[in-house]
Amino acid sequence: MQRKPLTLRNNEERRLRAGHLWVFSNEVDTKKTPLTAFAPGEEAVVTASRGRPLGVATVNPGSLICARLVDRDPEAVLDADFFRARLREALALRQRLYPTPHYRLLFSEGDHLPGLVLDRFGDVVVGQCNTAGMDARKALILEALLAELSPRTVIWRNDSASRDLEGLPRTVEVAHGEAPEHLDVEEDGARFAVPALGGQKTGWFYDMRENRSKLCRLVAGRTVLDLFAYAGAFGVRAALAGAAKVVCLDSSETACSMAAENAARNGVADRVTVVRADAADYLEAADAEGRTFDVVSLDPPALVKRKKDLEAGLKAYERFNRLAMDVVADGGLLMTCSCSQHVDAYELRRAALRAAAGRNLRAQILDQGRQGPDHPGHPAMAETEYLKSFLLRLVRP
Amino acid sequence: MQRKPLTLRNNEERRLRAGHLWVFSNEVDTKKTPLTAFAPGEEAVVTASRGRPLGVATVNPGSLICARLVDRDPEAVLDADFFRARLREALALRQRLYPTPHYRLLFSEGDHLPGLVLDRFGDVVVGQCNTAGMDARKALILEALLAELSPRTVIWRNDSASRDLEGLPRTVEVAHGEAPEHLDVEEDGARFAVPALGGQKTGWFYDMRENRSKLCRLVAGRTVLDLFAYAGAFGVRAALAGAAKVVCLDSSETACSMAAENAARNGVADRVTVVRADAADYLEAADAEGRTFDVVSLDPPALVKRKKDLEAGLKAYERFNRLAMDVVADGGLLMTCSCSQHVDAYELRRAALRAAAGRNLRAQILDQGRQGPDHPGHPAMAETEYLKSFLLRLVRP
Repeated sequence: MQRKPLTLRNNEERRLRAGHLWVFSNEVDTKKTPLTAFAPGEEAVVTASRGRPLGVATVNPGSLICARLVDRDPEAVLDADFFRARLREALALRQRLYPTPHYRLLFSEGDHLPGLVLDRFGDVVVGQCNTAGMDARKALILEALLAELSPRTVIWRNDSASRDLEGLPRTVEVAHGEAPEHLDVEEDGARFAVPALGGQKTGWFYDMRENRSKLCRLVAGRTVLDLFAYAGAFGVRAALAGAAKVVCLDSSETACSMAAENAARNGVADRVTVVRADAADYLEAADAEGRTFDVVSLDPPALVKRKKDLEAGLKAYERFNRLAMDVVADGGLLMTCSCSQHVDAYELRRAALRAAAGRNLRAQILDQGRQGPDHPGHPAMAETEYLKSFLLRLVRP
Repeated sequence: MQRKPLTLRNNEERRLRAGHLWVFSNEVDTKKTPLTAFAPGEEAVVTASRGRPLGVATVNPGSLICARLVDRDPEAVLDADFFRARLREALALRQRLYPTPHYRLLFSEGDHLPGLVLDRFGDVVVGQCNTAGMDARKALILEALLAELSPRTVIWRNDSASRDLEGLPRTVEVAHGEAPEHLDVEEDGARFAVPALGGQKTGWFYDMRENRSKLCRLVAGRTVLDLFAYAGAFGVRAALAGAAKVVCLDSSETACSMAAENAARNGVADRVTVVRADAADYLEAADAEGRTFDVVSLDPPALVKRKKDLEAGLKAYERFNRLAMDVVADGGLLMTCSCSQHVDAYELRRAALRAAAGRNLRAQILDQGRQGPDHPGHPAMAETEYLKSFLLRLVRP
């Protein structure tokens, strides 16, 4: 197969040799190999400045991350067999991790396929092609999926914001079969349903499953507040785990309907109250009324979307943590999370510490969490460890 | 109560005001308040340079960490009631976390009592006073323990290396009741026993319990290697969780006897082989014979004991990881750990990454762990987060 080389500037191969998968556009020797010579999604053999090949990448000349390595072998051929092999490798892990076919089946760089995300909901697969490289190979990926999993339906939720950076349009597409009305999810025996085409991201946040499981072990007989509840995943599971009373809060009407339906579906509607409100407004009002909860989950959407928003975003995390701490009962628990790729665990811990200090609370870290194991991290890419959480116990001295 | 002030130099109060509990000797204004005026263990009111009180500390003029805050309230009285209140606070957390009375009852700075460690084995409590401040208050602590828990036996395992830094002698002492022959432990239904006076540290490593539990969910039908097995905690639990075959390895004869007895105690001796050997020797021999394991646990003793040993210690971690990876089957799991306070998660991850790169393995991070929640971290003190672990999946491309 004839593939053009993409040659790096002197010494710019170091990060790749340490295991990283990304090439930034300012690292390319554009005199030798102009990026403009590549079509979006085209394959290239990335080479060090002196010509040593580093592997096969897909290129996007218009993106800041202009190439992503998909294989270290410069002879690798990106055909359906290639995608089938990667899928089998990913599938073997998930089948070992979970008793039912509900999981993130493939996690982009963490599964060594940069730009591709696949979530499995039984016999329905919902995917995202977030790079030009994967977008151009949608047909091959579908072929591999059909051959390995025989799903009833494959849906492309190619409507994520990250596609803008790649110059790709936002679309939603049923690529195989017919779209069901709902996607079905099972987590530790709890059953959920979300709209197949209208949910957030791919429809479900599998990444928080293990954090939910851990917290559910500590809720029996307690009062629980699930902030940014979305479809009620934590709140409903907390009720099933014996929580005395649960409030699921979300600002979206669709999310609130889903949460209420999921509570009913699991027979815990009598203990789950769904509230549609802005989180900060609700927390301030609850504090003013002196209401407290034994366990609070604070998992806001990413508050830092771009690196330059870091400072303002950290202030926003600190404020949410302070407001949430105001409604945690003495000796109670707060699970505080950040899914912002640009916020690291240290920064989240510091935001929580400052919030606790501002409220004169003694905080103890009981656990530190991350996204679940169906979202494997790439050990050379801190970027793949996007979800951080801390379970705190808060004591008023 | 008359307590001398311990005055800090200009601006040296910042770390304490951010929540940290330690004062280093070079931060003290020794002209105003000479450290030599304090007896080891004496109480003081720590003040900022202009006299603003920051709280009550215990002082040790001979230690690099010359004072440790025990309460932010400068009027706090360190009597038996004070210790009873702290014990109740710590006990309430553990009773919520665990179904049986087997846990770290109190974790030093993490429970806001710097220098005091208490492990509970049913009605036996084994403690460590690791600072002059706590050593001087042994009698008060015992009084508080008897009042709150009515234990049958209290043992001081005051023989840790950290006592050398405080100028304290190493002793083992039965402070209350009679020492039983064995300490009994229960973890997730598994029963263990270790010698009451002759085990490592306090006798049991409760800190790894949750990491063991997580790994045990992935061992059914698999072969398992438990390196640095000590009393067989992971290996025996893995066998109970359905592992096909387990090797527990330790270089200590005492540890090997304990592991074998604990395997028999749980009825899994037929599937647990105990091997007495040096870990590196064993791994090299196993690799030479082409033997592999589906799951390997690598939890060596602290390889970095002092900050200046960091570089050599990280090389040692990398080497152990490389040797362990050599015996992990394709697609198998390695849980790699460090209990060195001076090694952070980033450094451990890098050591593992280098080891994997050196062996041309594709590594995926499935989980990041820490010590269990009965070892709470202090959010302002990274020093309290001493145990780090990564669960890796290793694939040969």
